[in-house]
Amino acid sequence: MAQDSAADTRQQQLNLIKQADLTHHLHPFTDDNALKQHGPLVVTAAKGTRLFVETGIQLLDMVAGLGCVNIGYGREDMAERAAQVVGELSFYHTFQGATNPYTAVLAKKLSEMTPGHLNKSFFTNSGSEANETIVKLARAYWRLKGKPEKIQVVAREYAYHGSTLMTASLNGLPAMHQAYGLPLDGVHHIPSTAWYRNGGDQSPEDFALTCARALEAKVERIGADRIGLLFVEPVQVGAGVVFSSPAYWAELQRIAKAHDILIAVDETVTGFGRMGEWVYHPKLGIEADFVCLAKGMSSGYQPVGAAMVADHVAEVLAEGGVTQHGFTTSGHPVVAGLCLKNIEILAQEYLLDTVRESLGPRFQDRLQSLADHPLVGEVRGEGLAAGIELVADKATRRQYPLDQGVCGQISNAALMQGVVVRPVGNALVLCPPLVVNDAEIEHTVSVLESALDEVHGRLTGGD
Amino acid sequence: MAQDSAADTRQQQLNLIKQADLTHHLHPFTDDNALKQHGPLVVTAAKGTRLFVETGIQLLDMVAGLGCVNIGYGREDMAERAAQVVGELSFYHTFQGATNPYTAVLAKKLSEMTPGHLNKSFFTNSGSEANETIVKLARAYWRLKGKPEKIQVVAREYAYHGSTLMTASLNGLPAMHQAYGLPLDGVHHIPSTAWYRNGGDQSPEDFALTCARALEAKVERIGADRIGLLFVEPVQVGAGVVFSSPAYWAELQRIAKAHDILIAVDETVTGFGRMGEWVYHPKLGIEADFVCLAKGMSSGYQPVGAAMVADHVAEVLAEGGVTQHGFTTSGHPVVAGLCLKNIEILAQEYLLDTVRESLGPRFQDRLQSLADHPLVGEVRGEGLAAGIELVADKATRRQYPLDQGVCGQISNAALMQGVVVRPVGNALVLCPPLVVNDAEIEHTVSVLESALDEVHGRLTGGD
Ligand SMILES: Cc1ncc(COP(=O)(O)O)c(C=O)c1O
Ligand SMILES: Cc1ncc(COP(=O)(O)O)c(C=O)c1O
Repeated sequence: MAQDSAADTRQQQLNLIKQADLTHHLHPFTDDNALKQHGPLVVTAAKGTRLFVETGIQLLDMVAGLGCVNIGYGREDMAERAAQVVGELSFYHTFQGATNPYTAVLAKKLSEMTPGHLNKSFFTNSGSEANETIVKLARAYWRLKGKPEKIQVVAREYAYHGSTLMTASLNGLPAMHQAYGLPLDGVHHIPSTAWYRNGGDQSPEDFALTCARALEAKVERIGADRIGLLFVEPVQVGAGVVFSSPAYWAELQRIAKAHDILIAVDETVTGFGRMGEWVYHPKLGIEADFVCLAKGMSSGYQPVGAAMVADHVAEVLAEGGVTQHGFTTSGHPVVAGLCLKNIEILAQEYLLDTVRESLGPRFQDRLQSLADHPLVGEVRGEGLAAGIELVADKATRRQYPLDQGVCGQISNAALMQGVVVRPVGNALVLCPPLVVNDAEIEHTVSVLESALDEVHGRLTGGD
Repeated sequence: MAQDSAADTRQQQLNLIKQADLTHHLHPFTDDNALKQHGPLVVTAAKGTRLFVETGIQLLDMVAGLGCVNIGYGREDMAERAAQVVGELSFYHTFQGATNPYTAVLAKKLSEMTPGHLNKSFFTNSGSEANETIVKLARAYWRLKGKPEKIQVVAREYAYHGSTLMTASLNGLPAMHQAYGLPLDGVHHIPSTAWYRNGGDQSPEDFALTCARALEAKVERIGADRIGLLFVEPVQVGAGVVFSSPAYWAELQRIAKAHDILIAVDETVTGFGRMGEWVYHPKLGIEADFVCLAKGMSSGYQPVGAAMVADHVAEVLAEGGVTQHGFTTSGHPVVAGLCLKNIEILAQEYLLDTVRESLGPRFQDRLQSLADHPLVGEVRGEGLAAGIELVADKATRRQYPLDQGVCGQISNAALMQGVVVRPVGNALVLCPPLVVNDAEIEHTVSVLESALDEVHGRLTGGD
């Protein structure tokens, strides 16, 4: 009786929350019609790798929020740290030379985790703001170098760099441009190395070099005196975990250097342990002039980002006098305090080493068992990021038309069995918390197997 | 002995923090040379209206951080709320229709605090991102209305709307444009109603109407078919607390409506009680198509912003299908949980009523006593926002040249006496926490008096 009425109350509360959300919340990246039809999904609690939704359903989150919850959800030590810093220094800005112990120490930590020439961090509230900062600093740099015309920017197809006007312009995803009349002028795209999708008859190696040389063609068309910055992700996780070979990176950098183009490396998803490293790009031989950090920096516990600047760039910028750029909460002490605790946890619990040396390889190995499934073209991955590329015809690598929504059907079937994976175009992305265990990986593989079977049955069974 | 060695340790820690900061932290809005010379100012704790800096100096913060710490620093109930939500739901995104109880309820609260036609909120991590969101949504709106050319935007001189490329372009402050080669194409400015500075021989009323009609001239030059959005702050607090009359607002809106230009009202500083209201623009007779909220929304305890959208705009946007826009931490549960607690405190402690009915008027009244000082041109203000405009010659309203730094000298003199006020151009801005008391106001007035005297003495004494 008492049980029942408690359950009723919970259900009633849930309904009110859903109603409030439907009426008043404009959701990011959401299909308004689907939302009206199905209502919002209310997540009420989360712990470790687990989400608790609606009035008690448990889900295994193999996507770590949006690739950010590296240390797992709801840690008590993070809650304690939050209370401590909020009580001690709930806010102070970092304008006009002000700082606080958390932010100063975090800046030092970031430089320790990154290659020797990266020593200065500008703090922001998101990956988008960090990339905006990079674009602005690059513009300032080229002005100070007497080349104010080098304000045009190149990014890669399939890229994701953010949702402000400039960063959305950098995205290599036409759907994100169309509704808003983007890209802005002066933003250009070159192909990405998504060989399985777009490589045609070329070998992966040849295709990669073709992609790199598209930068050369772009420079020839626009002029090296007008292009100042190239944006790259070390791995395009959001696009389905698309990799590029070391030969590609060498060629791309050769071209960029030849034409005096700075390189911004977006480590938003790849940083803070997902690839078993604090930052992943040095392993690929990339030398960054700017690095964007976000997501795993706080494990999603706080909104945060940072734009790191190479010494040779920082030296030039220092000649500029007053930095006329910044966000009210840049270098927020509570945010920095939680980032520091997050970094401490990643280090003290050997999470990077574990991902690099044992958990990551086991995860990739287990997922490879899905590669033989008739719906699966290839399984790509490293560390705790994996993409399962779907295919309609393995011989020709022909894809299902995107509007058939095959990928979404599979992720929905997995969700019905309690496992969250992320459909992006024609690939499923997995990027679980770094505290995922073997049993959870095993369970995920079997759920995916059955989800793939179910959808394959539907596709071939004709009903 | 033990005392001494504890003090030594603290001093040593402080030196290490300063060193880390100087070497690794790229500060927002900071003069690099001054920073190198004087080192950073380390804020180690804050409570109520007070900052504790370095190894124990106490300062009275009459600027509330950056006009954001409305409920005061370091509240225990906020610390408890932070720990609770971090433990319960440290993060989940709001993409693809996901939500959480805090975010859903916050969206409802915002619509309750604002005029009846504002019912939908898009959450962001800052004021900059909220304004970026507004620009993108306005672009989407005009595309859906079959007018994709209406992507140009008008803002006012002296405006501050943010630090991303687009919002920095909206800023009406040349210093923020120059280093970065801004504004972007398609952003235009009209004069602001800063009569004391720029009104010349016109009466304030005539000058205000001239300023409003500059929008008409802009439309004539560029074409109503190309201008889609006008940005305004109800009061330009960051510019020195610049007001505009109801007649100005009526005329500006008449022109905007006549040419089908949407109005975005930036309430980043004016919202959440600083002017004694949740949002201030309805009092001025402004009807908003978009509202930007930030700062006071969390009292600076968390990075946050929101773009509110009028019903008639939301209806059009809903036809667009999938919203291809969003930030990883849009609608963050911890952030929303702290915003809700902040709103609860503002309401339960009657802080808005107090500001509107007693504290605000007393604050303004006491500051008016400075208006007779030979260095002071006028004292402007309402609620807990006040600007003290400096002047070299009261009869002609001639200003000191900005590079003489008179304003900075006065704020420095006040700082030496333990009171933080903000120098902006030729005005001092005060915008204290809403929990400031009469003794603190009294103390501030006497410190400002002596700071003004000191600088005046220096300017006229010839040493
Ligand atoms: C590679 C990459 N860069 C930048 C961003 C933007 O970060 P935010 O959503 O915090 O603005 C994302 C977000 O998904 C990302 O994946
Ligand atoms: C009126 C106004 N709008 C927008 C902003 C930008 O907010 P944020 O610094 O959170 O990006 C500010 C910040 O000072 C502001 O004062």
